Amino acid sequence: MNAAILCVGTELVTGMVRDVNASFLSHKLLGKGIFPKWILFVPDSMEETVSGFRFLLEQGVDFLFVSGGLGPTVDDFTREAVARALGKSLVFCEEAWESIRQAFYRIRGVEPPENNRKQAFFPEGARFLPNGVGTAPAFILEERGTRIFVLPGVPREVEFFWGLLEQEIPTLRGGVYRSEVLKFCGIGESQLEEKMLPLLSGLPQSLRFAFLPNYGEVWFFLYGQDVSLEDQKRAEETIAAVKSAFMPYLFSPFGETLEEAVGKLLLERGWRVALAESCTGGLVGSRITDVPGSSRYFERGYIVYSNEAKLTDIGVPGEVLRHFGAVSEETARYLAEGVRKKTGVDIGLGVTGIAGPGGESPEKPVGLVYIAVSDASRTEVRKFQFRGDRLMNKRFFSQAALTMLFIFLRERDIR
Amino acid sequence: MNAAILCVGTELVTGMVRDVNASFLSHKLLGKGIFPKWILFVPDSMEETVSGFRFLLEQGVDFLFVSGGLGPTVDDFTREAVARALGKSLVFCEEAWESIRQAFYRIRGVEPPENNRKQAFFPEGARFLPNGVGTAPAFILEERGTRIFVLPGVPREVEFFWGLLEQEIPTLRGGVYRSEVLKFCGIGESQLEEKMLPLLSGLPQSLRFAFLPNYGEVWFFLYGQDVSLEDQKRAEETIAAVKSAFMPYLFSPFGETLEEAVGKLLLERGWRVALAESCTGGLVGSRITDVPGSSRYFERGYIVYSNEAKLTDIGVPGEVLRHFGAVSEETARYLAEGVRKKTGVDIGLGVTGIAGPGGESPEKPVGLVYIAVSDASRTEVRKFQFRGDRLMNKRFFSQAALTMLFIFLRERDIR
Repeated sequence: MNAAILCVGTELVTGMVRDVNASFLSHKLLGKGIFPKWILFVPDSMEETVSGFRFLLEQGVDFLFVSGGLGPTVDDFTREAVARALGKSLVFCEEAWESIRQAFYRIRGVEPPENNRKQAFFPEGARFLPNGVGTAPAFILEERGTRIFVLPGVPREVEFFWGLLEQEIPTLRGGVYRSEVLKFCGIGESQLEEKMLPLLSGLPQSLRFAFLPNYGEVWFFLYGQDVSLEDQKRAEETIAAVKSAFMPYLFSPFGETLEEAVGKLLLERGWRVALAESCTGGLVGSRITDVPGSSRYFERGYIVYSNEAKLTDIGVPGEVLRHFGAVSEETARYLAEGVRKKTGVDIGLGVTGIAGPGGESPEKPVGLVYIAVSDASRTEVRKFQFRGDRLMNKRFFSQAALTMLFIFLRERDIR
Repeated sequence: MNAAILCVGTELVTGMVRDVNASFLSHKLLGKGIFPKWILFVPDSMEETVSGFRFLLEQGVDFLFVSGGLGPTVDDFTREAVARALGKSLVFCEEAWESIRQAFYRIRGVEPPENNRKQAFFPEGARFLPNGVGTAPAFILEERGTRIFVLPGVPREVEFFWGLLEQEIPTLRGGVYRSEVLKFCGIGESQLEEKMLPLLSGLPQSLRFAFLPNYGEVWFFLYGQDVSLEDQKRAEETIAAVKSAFMPYLFSPFGETLEEAVGKLLLERGWRVALAESCTGGLVGSRITDVPGSSRYFERGYIVYSNEAKLTDIGVPGEVLRHFGAVSEETARYLAEGVRKKTGVDIGLGVTGIAGPGGESPEKPVGLVYIAVSDASRTEVRKFQFRGDRLMNKRFFSQAALTMLFIFLRERDIR
């Protein structure tokens, strides 16, 4: 089964307010095995609301959700637009008006103004639902096999009505199928795909696969509509085969995010980590501490932005800084080893690079970073060259640092 | 002039990934006076991409932006979908392939795999644009009076291409009008609105105002459609009046972001700052160093996550930690003063709080944070109580810390 979502609101199309309702509804629909194929945003305008509604209805979806534009003010058009798109007239509903009066009294302690009366008009044949947390009633109707739910735009009210409506929406088995999402780091999208294709060649017709690159991570999953139980079994076998073939790069069995995965590996070993980061300015520390309970394995960090800080806080020798430079393999090594020894932790991480703009030289361009990971038995240093703006480079540097930590910790298992 | 935005991606309609590109593009278009009337999301599917593209093209918009589905993998359909919707064939472009090879070599240091070749195919008549930050080229074509821009789905790449394309898009006068956006910190939305309303009561009918709260910042602007030059003048007078009435809280004249504003004030004074942050885990440092050139005023930071770190790195007395606790006014004060004295900078910032979940006590709930700012003449400590989840609290804490820095630096001017 399919669904479409139409969100009405000038504030949404102009980017002044971030969408909440479409995300909420699509997430809930997916949970029921219904595929939200269309999400359309239009401004508070009769013309666009009517055409957008008609277009979505023409797609023959099973469910059409409309949200927004049910308020009492002159820029609220949704009731009229839905009626017009369906060639119906608007009918006043005494019972709905009574529910609005009660809601108003409950919330504000006064009678509603006259302009709230428009909220009690619905397209003929519609069934209204009183609003338990605001004033505007929602309404439901059916047309050409599509069930239409028209809801207010306030996120809390959408959640309230979803609670009422979800019993009317079947939870499908064999509807939209989506496998577990596998997340990889330390391997590129096309490299991964090329190596993975032999495993995917025998997939049944009903299954498709997706690769999503995301700042140095690659996400992979299988999905499809009306996937038979047999094909779901095939999907799960494929997922298992992919997992075992790419285990060293696969971090999602350890957590939703890479920082969670790193944290879980550290916890398993009972290891503590400390950082000395320069160009990332605290971003690596911030990501590690995004994970609840990270105080169990994160000891501390040094944001050694100046050379003076590298020297006095971590003890990078002045000679190394002068001879090789602050951005060098040698400095990265001293940072990781120095911070590990100074703080007495099990594993140290050092990051030094050039986020840009500016600060580059012919031998050391913007986007260059050296990252070192060090434990009692070995230190690994790697050089990466990224090519983004400052924020993108900081993000890539922190991603590469967490990836190195993850792979370093994994390799001890794999080898 | 109008625009439409089509975003292709199963991860978007299924709510796995939040939209960034449509928000970005609509914001930028609005800044040029172009009204983004349609924003449509479809899955990685030929059928929906073709129908969605056709529908938007039929609306007769001046600009149609398409984003996503230009990758090298077999679930990337956008090139084919656009060609099919327009009844054109796909043509291989040698020059584009060369640009992909170069991009690939630059980023990964190797030749691209064969499956990247598909990224060099475009609908006949299209003009391609090489990708400066990724591999997939964008392309441009014109059809029935609509200029069509087809971009990759990676947000940074959309930003990159916008930088190239914006010269080709006119900036309109007399279309959608939006005033300068005023950004405030250190004052709440309703408090600001209440105090500002007298200044707004005489605004002409064509102008509307918006308050957008954003993690402790409040953004304010005036907007309207078909605003006469006379009314635009009134709008600008109102903006000037608001600016002068709320100057101490207004940071946008100093930069786009609060961290830029703080940086500019530090630069003006020739001051350097150092941090000792605990619960924010490096986020304050990361935000300060998001600003290009921040090495001119950011000396270093200490992520003093453990008590041991607070004690040994900053010298918070063990007695203070034992008696008042790590999350206390006293510890915050020692952090700010200690890091300032230790590093010899002009201004020190200390942050200590409970991001949660867990770690709270009856007297010290999750969301509690103490922040201290210290210069040679005084130390200011404030307590804040937020109510978010861990990531929200970290964000709120860092925002409060930057706000305190800003107000501290401003007050020296105002007083």
